[in-house]
Amino acid sequence: MKIKKINHVAIAVSNIEEALSFWCDALGLEMDHIEKVTSQKARVAFLPVGDSEVELVQPTSDDSGTARFLRERGPGMHHLCFEVEDILDALKQLKAKGVRLINEKPLELEDRKMAFIHPKSTYGVLVELYQII
Amino acid sequence: MKIKKINHVAIAVSNIEEALSFWCDALGLEMDHIEKVTSQKARVAFLPVGDSEVELVQPTSDDSGTARFLRERGPGMHHLCFEVEDILDALKQLKAKGVRLINEKPLELEDRKMAFIHPKSTYGVLVELYQII
Repeated sequence: MKIKKINHVAIAVSNIEEALSFWCDALGLEMDHIEKVTSQKARVAFLPVGDSEVELVQPTSDDSGTARFLRERGPGMHHLCFEVEDILDALKQLKAKGVRLINEKPLELEDRKMAFIHPKSTYGVLVELYQII
Repeated sequence: MKIKKINHVAIAVSNIEEALSFWCDALGLEMDHIEKVTSQKARVAFLPVGDSEVELVQPTSDDSGTARFLRERGPGMHHLCFEVEDILDALKQLKAKGVRLINEKPLELEDRKMAFIHPKSTYGVLVELYQII
């Protein structure tokens, strides 16, 4: 399996506009855009940096994963996403190694296929895989 | 202030060799080397990926920041490090914006200057800055 790069680091926040006061105004990252990501029940601010992105994720529903994360742990790094060449091949190889997958089949969006790996198998990190299509 | 890229994402682990069974054997990242980082009271495995690195950080002392993190939250993403052109300028600008710094002056190692920003000011993320020298 070929991991190309870190696609993004996702940070769970209660309020994107407040968080931008640090991430953009103070730290100096630039915001590309804010988007409603229905599949994740969230609003997401995309902050490109180098060859990757920081994503600020604000839940739009109380029953989403990030909403639960915020209630249980407070704001902070939520998941780490790697870009792969071939996500079907990646998931097949991970399964063969006994890795627990949250999505056994990738979710397909317009511009990418994506799947999450369970933190029980990664030593505590929620890992996402992207294949850009 | 110019942020060049994500230098690394640091993951706190109890045991590097165990964690490598996921990060290298299953996910397929390559390990560059393992190093004892005295200033952090830790052993660190460096896994380059794209233009950044994943670092697995195993505390070597019970009174280190990562040891406390592991006790309180379990293994997981510990901090996010950005590379800047000029760390003195970066810290000066952050301070002027009212950002709380853990290190008001950078720590100087052989190959880099580094400083941490307090998670109270970043909306929950322990952020590190590096200037490579």
